[in-house]
Amino acid sequence: MSRRICVVITARPSYSRIKSALRAIQKHPDLDLQLVVAASALLDRYGNAVEIIEQDGFKVAERVYMIVEGGNLVTSAKSTGLGIVELSTVLDNLRPDVVVTIADRFETMATAVAASYTNIPLAHVQGGEVTGSIDEKVRHAVTKLANIHFVSNRKAAERVLRMGEEPSTVFVTGCPSVDLAAEVLKDPLLDFDPVRTYDGVGAVFESFKDYVVVMQHPVTTEYDAARQHITETLHAVKDLALPTFWFWPNVDAGTDGTSGGIRAFREIERPSNMHFFKNMTPTDFLKLLHNARCLVGNSSVGIRECAFLGVPVVNIGTRQMGRERGINVIDVDYDRQNILTAIGRHLSNGRYPSDQIYGDGKAGERIAGLLARVPLGVEKQLCY
Amino acid sequence: MSRRICVVITARPSYSRIKSALRAIQKHPDLDLQLVVAASALLDRYGNAVEIIEQDGFKVAERVYMIVEGGNLVTSAKSTGLGIVELSTVLDNLRPDVVVTIADRFETMATAVAASYTNIPLAHVQGGEVTGSIDEKVRHAVTKLANIHFVSNRKAAERVLRMGEEPSTVFVTGCPSVDLAAEVLKDPLLDFDPVRTYDGVGAVFESFKDYVVVMQHPVTTEYDAARQHITETLHAVKDLALPTFWFWPNVDAGTDGTSGGIRAFREIERPSNMHFFKNMTPTDFLKLLHNARCLVGNSSVGIRECAFLGVPVVNIGTRQMGRERGINVIDVDYDRQNILTAIGRHLSNGRYPSDQIYGDGKAGERIAGLLARVPLGVEKQLCY
Amino acid sequence: MSRRICVVITARPSYSRIKSALRAIQKHPDLDLQLVVAASALLDRYGNAVEIIEQDGFKVAERVYMIVEGGNLVTSAKSTGLGIVELSTVLDNLRPDVVVTIADRFETMATAVAASYTNIPLAHVQGGEVTGSIDEKVRHAVTKLANIHFVSNRKAAERVLRMGEEPSTVFVTGCPSVDLAAEVLKDPLLDFDPVRTYDGVGAVFESFKDYVVVMQHPVTTEYDAARQHITETLHAVKDLALPTFWFWPNVDAGTDGTSGGIRAFREIERPSNMHFFKNMTPTDFLKLLHNARCLVGNSSVGIRECAFLGVPVVNIGTRQMGRERGINVIDVDYDRQNILTAIGRHLSNGRYPSDQIYGDGKAGERIAGLLARVPLGVEKQLCY
Amino acid sequence: MSRRICVVITARPSYSRIKSALRAIQKHPDLDLQLVVAASALLDRYGNAVEIIEQDGFKVAERVYMIVEGGNLVTSAKSTGLGIVELSTVLDNLRPDVVVTIADRFETMATAVAASYTNIPLAHVQGGEVTGSIDEKVRHAVTKLANIHFVSNRKAAERVLRMGEEPSTVFVTGCPSVDLAAEVLKDPLLDFDPVRTYDGVGAVFESFKDYVVVMQHPVTTEYDAARQHITETLHAVKDLALPTFWFWPNVDAGTDGTSGGIRAFREIERPSNMHFFKNMTPTDFLKLLHNARCLVGNSSVGIRECAFLGVPVVNIGTRQMGRERGINVIDVDYDRQNILTAIGRHLSNGRYPSDQIYGDGKAGERIAGLLARVPLGVEKQLCY
Repeated sequence: MSRRICVVITARPSYSRIKSALRAIQKHPDLDLQLVVAASALLDRYGNAVEIIEQDGFKVAERVYMIVEGGNLVTSAKSTGLGIVELSTVLDNLRPDVVVTIADRFETMATAVAASYTNIPLAHVQGGEVTGSIDEKVRHAVTKLANIHFVSNRKAAERVLRMGEEPSTVFVTGCPSVDLAAEVLKDPLLDFDPVRTYDGVGAVFESFKDYVVVMQHPVTTEYDAARQHITETLHAVKDLALPTFWFWPNVDAGTDGTSGGIRAFREIERPSNMHFFKNMTPTDFLKLLHNARCLVGNSSVGIRECAFLGVPVVNIGTRQMGRERGINVIDVDYDRQNILTAIGRHLSNGRYPSDQIYGDGKAGERIAGLLARVPLGVEKQLCY
Repeated sequence: MSRRICVVITARPSYSRIKSALRAIQKHPDLDLQLVVAASALLDRYGNAVEIIEQDGFKVAERVYMIVEGGNLVTSAKSTGLGIVELSTVLDNLRPDVVVTIADRFETMATAVAASYTNIPLAHVQGGEVTGSIDEKVRHAVTKLANIHFVSNRKAAERVLRMGEEPSTVFVTGCPSVDLAAEVLKDPLLDFDPVRTYDGVGAVFESFKDYVVVMQHPVTTEYDAARQHITETLHAVKDLALPTFWFWPNVDAGTDGTSGGIRAFREIERPSNMHFFKNMTPTDFLKLLHNARCLVGNSSVGIRECAFLGVPVVNIGTRQMGRERGINVIDVDYDRQNILTAIGRHLSNGRYPSDQIYGDGKAGERIAGLLARVPLGVEKQLCY
Repeated sequence: MSRRICVVITARPSYSRIKSALRAIQKHPDLDLQLVVAASALLDRYGNAVEIIEQDGFKVAERVYMIVEGGNLVTSAKSTGLGIVELSTVLDNLRPDVVVTIADRFETMATAVAASYTNIPLAHVQGGEVTGSIDEKVRHAVTKLANIHFVSNRKAAERVLRMGEEPSTVFVTGCPSVDLAAEVLKDPLLDFDPVRTYDGVGAVFESFKDYVVVMQHPVTTEYDAARQHITETLHAVKDLALPTFWFWPNVDAGTDGTSGGIRAFREIERPSNMHFFKNMTPTDFLKLLHNARCLVGNSSVGIRECAFLGVPVVNIGTRQMGRERGINVIDVDYDRQNILTAIGRHLSNGRYPSDQIYGDGKAGERIAGLLARVPLGVEKQLCY
Repeated sequence: MSRRICVVITARPSYSRIKSALRAIQKHPDLDLQLVVAASALLDRYGNAVEIIEQDGFKVAERVYMIVEGGNLVTSAKSTGLGIVELSTVLDNLRPDVVVTIADRFETMATAVAASYTNIPLAHVQGGEVTGSIDEKVRHAVTKLANIHFVSNRKAAERVLRMGEEPSTVFVTGCPSVDLAAEVLKDPLLDFDPVRTYDGVGAVFESFKDYVVVMQHPVTTEYDAARQHITETLHAVKDLALPTFWFWPNVDAGTDGTSGGIRAFREIERPSNMHFFKNMTPTDFLKLLHNARCLVGNSSVGIRECAFLGVPVVNIGTRQMGRERGINVIDVDYDRQNILTAIGRHLSNGRYPSDQIYGDGKAGERIAGLLARVPLGVEKQLCY
């Protein structure tokens, strides 16, 4: 009998990080995919990931609305609580053999608690990494609730093992997000017009030859400062005066600070070199990155996919603190002048060679293969 | 300015494990106690711990109803989700400087998520221990969400450190539950009539000289078997034919199995040597234990307080699996004959010397002292 | 195409009030029954109605745990809120053409809000009646949310119409609970041994010739007094000294007062003429009533089914205030002497003739027929 | 002792409808105001009413986040359920003598259930009116849960009485929203620059002499059509070619349709005569209306305040269906040509005389006076 694999996707970026695995699960003769789309992945103002998911040919088994509006720390907690209430019903209906959760967003704790409390084996993708902010706590707490660990690299595996997980449950698969980057690297042509295809608002450019991309999210434990942080980046990029594709932040406590800062800047400064997008398909996004002169912001895409693609990255602030990074990354603090200087260094240097620190492009197939054959159980104990 | 210390108590046994620390916090000139009583600690049918708490002179700042009735795994998850929704409001109102959570019951995850998601430093009592069942996952996940760790012994500290916690945040305080045992050891006389003081139902005994105590909880990951497990114990104790004080189980998925098993047994077998209690004050309970010939069941009291008291314990099944134990414990499986034999061995052997593996009786004061002076922060990273 | 009829049952007594309609819906060629069992109907300690429902041959489409434990007014509200959260998901999955809700228990508001807010036509059984307490508010509020009204008698219809409902949506079907009474009246023999069949606890009687039945629920708006109220009844019935079958109350704010009162009385007074049941199948319960000398308490069964059966009823307190009643009912206040006197009057008087004020025994078929053919819509306006 | 009056405000327009009463309660020597701000009244993207409330000098006792994001019917229900869970805690903490709820938005049911289930007398402002959509059901259901009724006019009072409410509990106070209109009528000068004061986005106008105002909300039971409906209005107003101040819709299932339609229209049609606002203080908004040539849309402001102000109104579609209206209103369907024609008729006709069908401008003081002296109780029965 096939194993039922329930994957819970709670946000736009999480979809990119699991897409190749979804495809491999879907194709695998011994696996049935049960796809649950939840939280901001259902919401229009965070890019309506569910639409892209369905366009990519995946069937959605259940939709779970769980975001309590408010954009602050208390509503982050409440959304997680509501998510547990909702997801426990969903899992009780779907009765999967394994639940898969991705990375470390605050609401992934809801998936982890709902699965582990109802005695369903939990597989965790991207454990063992190190960053700043609440993500750090969430990631390792999910590791302690999980039964199977699919990690990006040897360093991550080592950390998961040192936390006491049973060695036979920890697998270095690489990160599935790199699988998409690997595909794009084979066919990197920017074969679409971003503005025509994805609308968005703001400046329209004549040529797409020399441009940068910006993606900057609020940092939870500093959310009061989110508006100030984004304003530094906005000024730096305005002064840079290159065509810029800017992506709106995902849902987090502090979103309002970041989004509000962008909106205020647009009204007051009326920048003429920025176009704003809500979302793109993962593949189009990677093509846009591959052809960019530089990525600016604090997205993990800069650390992960851009290492493989060799795209120069200016990484701002603490959000990716502690993560392994390639030579394509320059770290700076929230300071318009420092940001501008770092971009300048990248522009004069150009692209970097491909680096496999987050995977070799075959993570999805490895994960599907393992999900079909690893022994399943819910009991575990510290391995010390 | 005083630090506001919010302690969340979610069940009767958790109160015993923190009472001495509550007293020390209350007395400490630099600490203000904010006591939140939640979950089954508010419910009559689980012993109405809140009443005992108030009789002991503690002021309850907030009451949080969060148990969704049903007694199964899905409602355990839902109760936890509802608890996060409720507790995040409570913490937002109380604005404590530290939140303290105790041990590893399923619903303690609600306290841990509510505190860590709203950027309040979390102190965890009794981390680093090892058991079976869902408690094992909950305990270590809470460790990964916590900022301060008050552990029972060196072995527990070692495990917490190996999980990557910062050494300056891990303190071997001993377990506060042993503090009460230490007091009782100084004044161990059974100076009250259990039946007269605590009512309960069942047989009434002429003398309290030779009696045993039973306390057996359902084991979450095996809850279908809960009724069968308790029935083995019931038969063993009936056959033993000694006066027996039996405590109803606390709220857990599977409670209905255990409680239902006890009720059915009483109706059918009409045992003449058992009296059933819902609850007792921690001190009276320890006095009752100290004067008992043996404790039977799977309560952690047998591992912890009884080691200090030197009371013989027959520990049944997997619930305490992996926990350090003293020579006072004989482990048996769910089998009436084996249970009976083990009790027999203890009866012929008698009491054991006091063992300090879970503390020296001064944990509460140590904890209060540390809460007043440790540096507070919410950021953390794996220490590897 | 068949219409999907979703019936939500939230308590043991609600099942009796809808059973004949369920059977008729199940048999009807143009209707598909979607049965949702929720709230206390799922809970062992309120009689585990779901078991009886399945034994009666109904398939349960969804189970919804929604009772927040605590037994007070705040948890009644919270349970209702949680019920809306849960039931809106359930209705979104089942996509019924009509939702049927029964009577006026607090948690039925959850069904009514979930259905009406998601634009599903709502049919309400037993609107337009008059009682005391919170039920009164809930019942008429549900009427204002409902699109179709199946009422017990002309007086109820008149009230629903005067509240502004469209005449073409109001149907005098009789109350389906009377359908079961009509069946029992055709075959009234007490053909089972209550104690052997239903266990329960308490006294065991030699003969079942002269006995009374007691069923008394707490009254929400007076719940502090619940314990005192039940104690009056307990003393009256003890003094009566006839064999008595006593049913535990259903879940309501105040349950703990009533149940607690019963438990305390049993421990202290050790009554020798009372046997306590949790539940019975509706049919067995009506047979037990039919053969009783008298029903004592405040259940609507006394007003409704007992009118049809001609069973003498002593109705205590305000719970049924304002409801039409037959000559079989004597109303008394919470006073042991008055209760005893009223029982005495009934005992000397004997049975009463059958009265059809709550229906002629064909309500279920009428309701099913109407559900198959009434026009469906969700818009409505006051008809003034 | 003063009576504690808890007013729950859940949306921007509800604040306008109660502001004068809040002021009168605040000033009254025998009343203490407990102001709860909840739901979309807390959210930036619905105009951040809470900020305006605080600027107006009111102290907010509690903030309640309860909107589950999704903008569909299922999340409307879930938001209401979550609101009950949250508000029952809030009321338990505040222990008011009366709770006041306003009008008929979906989430006001949460206030009504939380108050009535916890036995707190509920006062309802603006009952007895008639409209289309789910509001109609909510309004009358709230009437059946309420104990005190403050209605706008005799016709509304008559309807509340016919629904069976006790005459001594129904008071024709007029609508407090008209109180603000009465103040504005005394001092109607447009003494601020809307764009400078309130930012917003879109066209900037040289003069404010001849302009129209648009405010159009989605209609719940037709929400799929929301985008199409708004597009008709957008085209009509674009063709009108007069300066236009347009207000974003409030939160409702369907918001995304309406907002999305506006955003799409702006990107594609790039209208040069529209400026878009999120919010204004109630007084500034009324001044803007008073000086407008016409109000277009489906806001109740057109029916209510504009009757008093004598402002011409083109009322589109079913949202205000059945409400009493003055001669200032022309009703049209969702058709750009009909909308344009109706505006034309108003422009050639000019302003209308003041009409008091919704009050004489003294509602707030009347309500405060009554709250201080009406007898309080929670029991009620149909008055037939």
